[in-house]
Amino acid sequence: MKQFLGLMLLLLAANIQAQSDTETLRTIYTTSLTNGKSYEWLDYLSNQIGGRLSGSLNAEKAVQYTKEELEKLGLDKVWLQPVMVPKWVRGTKEYAFIESNTGVTTTVNICALGGSIATPFGGIKAPVIEVQDFDELKAMGKEKVSGKIVFFNRPMQADLIQTFEAYGGCVNQRYSGAMEAGKLGAVGVIVRSMNLRLDDLPHTGSMSYGDLPNSQRIPSAAISTNDAEKLSSMLALDKNLKFFFNQTCQQLKEVQSYNVIGEITGSEYPNEYIIVGGHLDSWDLGDGSHDDGAGCVQSMDVLRLLKESGIKPKRSIRVVLFMNEENGLRGATKYAEVAKQKGENHIFSLESDAGGFTPRGFSFDCSDAVFNKIESWKSLFKPYLIHYFEQGGSGADVGPLKTETNVCAGLRPDSQRYFDHHHAANDTFEHVNKRELELGAATMTSLVYLIDKYGISPISNNEKIKD
Amino acid sequence: MKQFLGLMLLLLAANIQAQSDTETLRTIYTTSLTNGKSYEWLDYLSNQIGGRLSGSLNAEKAVQYTKEELEKLGLDKVWLQPVMVPKWVRGTKEYAFIESNTGVTTTVNICALGGSIATPFGGIKAPVIEVQDFDELKAMGKEKVSGKIVFFNRPMQADLIQTFEAYGGCVNQRYSGAMEAGKLGAVGVIVRSMNLRLDDLPHTGSMSYGDLPNSQRIPSAAISTNDAEKLSSMLALDKNLKFFFNQTCQQLKEVQSYNVIGEITGSEYPNEYIIVGGHLDSWDLGDGSHDDGAGCVQSMDVLRLLKESGIKPKRSIRVVLFMNEENGLRGATKYAEVAKQKGENHIFSLESDAGGFTPRGFSFDCSDAVFNKIESWKSLFKPYLIHYFEQGGSGADVGPLKTETNVCAGLRPDSQRYFDHHHAANDTFEHVNKRELELGAATMTSLVYLIDKYGISPISNNEKIKD
Repeated sequence: MKQFLGLMLLLLAANIQAQSDTETLRTIYTTSLTNGKSYEWLDYLSNQIGGRLSGSLNAEKAVQYTKEELEKLGLDKVWLQPVMVPKWVRGTKEYAFIESNTGVTTTVNICALGGSIATPFGGIKAPVIEVQDFDELKAMGKEKVSGKIVFFNRPMQADLIQTFEAYGGCVNQRYSGAMEAGKLGAVGVIVRSMNLRLDDLPHTGSMSYGDLPNSQRIPSAAISTNDAEKLSSMLALDKNLKFFFNQTCQQLKEVQSYNVIGEITGSEYPNEYIIVGGHLDSWDLGDGSHDDGAGCVQSMDVLRLLKESGIKPKRSIRVVLFMNEENGLRGATKYAEVAKQKGENHIFSLESDAGGFTPRGFSFDCSDAVFNKIESWKSLFKPYLIHYFEQGGSGADVGPLKTETNVCAGLRPDSQRYFDHHHAANDTFEHVNKRELELGAATMTSLVYLIDKYGISPISNNEKIKD
Repeated sequence: MKQFLGLMLLLLAANIQAQSDTETLRTIYTTSLTNGKSYEWLDYLSNQIGGRLSGSLNAEKAVQYTKEELEKLGLDKVWLQPVMVPKWVRGTKEYAFIESNTGVTTTVNICALGGSIATPFGGIKAPVIEVQDFDELKAMGKEKVSGKIVFFNRPMQADLIQTFEAYGGCVNQRYSGAMEAGKLGAVGVIVRSMNLRLDDLPHTGSMSYGDLPNSQRIPSAAISTNDAEKLSSMLALDKNLKFFFNQTCQQLKEVQSYNVIGEITGSEYPNEYIIVGGHLDSWDLGDGSHDDGAGCVQSMDVLRLLKESGIKPKRSIRVVLFMNEENGLRGATKYAEVAKQKGENHIFSLESDAGGFTPRGFSFDCSDAVFNKIESWKSLFKPYLIHYFEQGGSGADVGPLKTETNVCAGLRPDSQRYFDHHHAANDTFEHVNKRELELGAATMTSLVYLIDKYGISPISNNEKIKD
């Protein structure tokens, strides 16, 4: 059976030059679904390595592993691009409880936010004020906020269909909550986890103090959505309850790390670059399967699927596994700097960083004319239920590459379950479905194939797709 | 917060008559996502009742529970429609092993197929022949097949994008395998589970002996995909290995059961019926959350969401929870018979029976002219990422209602993970995502709203949708 399949794929691949685009996409999807490597790679990255926080031993293991795997693919070049990254460490497991005015304590689930300072040795206990947003906080002023723990409890909006919009509407609490509360003399910040479900898992993520002086920097943690509801209910009954939390996280010195890059050099336009990527670092609570192990292995498989499908690109195709998206974006910044220095003409940069769920389409950061050209390929994707081609954002790692001529894009998988797992202990391998992951890899490969074949300059009549 | 939300929904609902269709759909989706009941109902059906095989105590509990819940909604009518159903029982847990020619035994995971007879008392042990399909079986003939256990091992085709097509390509092994093998004198049948994943769970499902005489009827069981691979590998090394299995299932006498029906009577055309439904029975290994608890609670919520959104239908809208889809279709047959007897004019029948996953659209069994009319509403669904409007099959339970004038349709959710759970012990509540379920309910409600408002006769100019 397997031999027959191998032979069939070989025949399909040998015949690629004579194929229509319809047939080529069929070959790409079939190869991914019957002979993909993305799931096997993700298994290793998730279960043999695990969470890959920037600067950690695991992050370096992931760099070595993915480099070695790319080297096995027979690409034209594989290399590591050095970059210094921040090294924040969580320390011992965080601990928190609510203490009622009668002294009864209720343990709750928290985790330090990435970049936060530790609590004072032994933890901190203080009264709590609950707010929905910065306006409400500022209206309270120093007098009411000083000495308190500020509890940001604005939930993600359930009626938004695209969950990333719901995330966008709340994440300022997590990112800047400690900065805003610190300015007003608060002693700590607790943020409702960015999660649309009610469950017991706290969700970490980056936060920043901006240029706040050290004296105003306060520890900041996420609380699970169930415990956020509990704290809010208890506060409604007892304004004087106290909250205790202890965390020992710290920011260490920067360390050396790497972007991992592989390339198939273009046969006609070697200095026109199309890149596909994800970020190799992840948060530390889970194993980073959806965020963004999935995007990494899909991007690796794009180059492999092109080769397996017998496609010889005219332009140079690179996979870039960016380091440090989560808490610094150093890898992306470095990659864009070096590309600029070398005068590399990046024409298309695609990121997969929205989970390994069923792909629905892409979001393109480009001009109307280019979008119209790309959208004219949409019908080729219909058999694969890919329907979402919209102008909009792309991805954090490809953002720094954006120029007048470089089109940036992001894969858009189904987003309904993404924030159930995002930055939490349940972002783990068993929550990624093999077929969904492979469909994503095939969808990315198909777009890269079309971009390579037809370029991105606005459509002209002699560039009609081969139906 | 909740009070504010309630007030907002009330205001939205009060204003429904003045709303455009765009606004009405927004109201429906918002209501489902912020104030839906489908998930709560499914929790009860799955976790307080559980698997609901026709004729079982649980099936009757589910009839009573859903009737009571419908009665709480203030519908115009709620009733039970009696129907006799087959009662097949699994008996004690099945047991199976592979025995090598050196006498070493390897336990494997099997389950009896629904409708199968038991093995002879104490189980049966016989040599195995592996086949891919009925042609291969028939080519072997009586001489080779007689006295053997036939192992049907054709896998679901991974390169088909729509997993129901992959299922359709394999399910004849399960349904008719024992009949075909029994004709050739086989003593038992083992069928590879209808599952695209490799895992340890056997998947049950219905099978039939057709009109085969009792003397030729042989026991039939499903084996997990991992164990199917194992058995196949071991057979390649040792053609003389033996397979043992024991199952004590039996077909009892038919028993009384019910379809559960609720109705909002139409204000203008009370004898034009639009129905939404799912099937209340399920297999017994899991709790039937995806198949088809999800479809039942979504259908129940369609009537509730119409009411909550302030929509007063012109036509009669019914929810029908069909009994016995899995092994007899008796409920669906009865419902269609009674509707015909009473001369009820069913104009649209929608079933949700493909899991509680993110909805992608609908499949319509109707004429081109009607399809064109319905498809003209597609743009209204774009904000909800509903893109799949295709002509094709509908659902098993609404099938018997199909006439020249009745349009049948099926909700089409994302299908990638459906067969990971289908008819297996992991078809359980925790695998249903609340938002995905609620989006399905809203999508069904929106279509029912439009069908009720515009009817299904082919489009005329004065029936333009209100953008």
